Amino acid sequence: MANKFIVETSARHIHISQKDLEILFGKDSSLTPKKDLSQPEQFACEERVTIVGPKKELEGVSILGPVRPATQVELSATDARSIGISAPLRESGDVTGSAGCKIKGPCGEIEIKEGVIIAKRHTHLTPETAEQFKVKDKDLVWVKVNTQERKAIFGDVVVRVSTKFAPAMHIDTDEANAVCASRDSIGEIVFV
Amino acid sequence: MANKFIVETSARHIHISQKDLEILFGKDSSLTPKKDLSQPEQFACEERVTIVGPKKELEGVSILGPVRPATQVELSATDARSIGISAPLRESGDVTGSAGCKIKGPCGEIEIKEGVIIAKRHTHLTPETAEQFKVKDKDLVWVKVNTQERKAIFGDVVVRVSTKFAPAMHIDTDEANAVCASRDSIGEIVFV
Repeated sequence: MANKFIVETSARHIHISQKDLEILFGKDSSLTPKKDLSQPEQFACEERVTIVGPKKELEGVSILGPVRPATQVELSATDARSIGISAPLRESGDVTGSAGCKIKGPCGEIEIKEGVIIAKRHTHLTPETAEQFKVKDKDLVWVKVNTQERKAIFGDVVVRVSTKFAPAMHIDTDEANAVCASRDSIGEIVFV
Repeated sequence: MANKFIVETSARHIHISQKDLEILFGKDSSLTPKKDLSQPEQFACEERVTIVGPKKELEGVSILGPVRPATQVELSATDARSIGISAPLRESGDVTGSAGCKIKGPCGEIEIKEGVIIAKRHTHLTPETAEQFKVKDKDLVWVKVNTQERKAIFGDVVVRVSTKFAPAMHIDTDEANAVCASRDSIGEIVFV
């Protein structure tokens, strides 16, 4: 599988701080793992929230655990537009000056001033795979997703390298639909 | 502008037959042009409809005129999924065995058994530009959309050539979001 990895679709989701979790779900709440994700120690949770924008709200949005230092909301551009939020395209964690929203849980709600982003497409690699693929952390690469009917070569794919990662590319639902991605889609770094 | 053309985003819309128009908008109704489109004699209309799926409905959906022999609904994959319709990826006009839906207008509603599609991305060319670009009708080509932050090279772009066309590529809102397309985006046929 030279230069290849699985392509996973990230539907809208949030990461949450312990403080915000307790406001939304009650004092001393903790996240309940529902399903392991491809990245080690990351999991989708039983808990869900509602993301509220000026125009509309999105119910049943997943929380991905474990808790993080700061709450972050990742939407597709379609999602953001549908609820009336102008969210910037950012790497995860780079939320300064990004968009705000209201988040509702069963026990309370919070208003965040920043933290709503459209995630830049990216591929997680281990140091070993990065070396093998001749790329390094923060490189921007082209990745071909060779689907049957709607293939594409995505540019501006951020390479992220860590011993804590497993090789996998993450795209949002707009990007997944633009290539008709399925559960078994494969990405390949190409040099165009 | 060798091999280049404008890239336009087609939001969800319908084409409608005279018979269906009269059911939805009343006897002897005609379409009211609101805005000319890039393709000669094609226009967006003042009239709007609601597209109803098993899960939800989409209000305020544009009608593109003039009337056509058959009613056709073009949604993004995000749209189709959101209202619970499993629509196939098709070229405009190729609707046999495609999805159905209900369509509501101010005076009535219709139920279509087929006609709901996700449109294949395509580029309209005149015979002169097609010859200049060395492509022909029905070719599948790669088109680079060189945006600032989310560039991509779309594969499986259908070439459509007619004396009635003006050069312009049409992508849906999922595809537009996947490249952060704007009103001045340009596509370029590339050979990868």
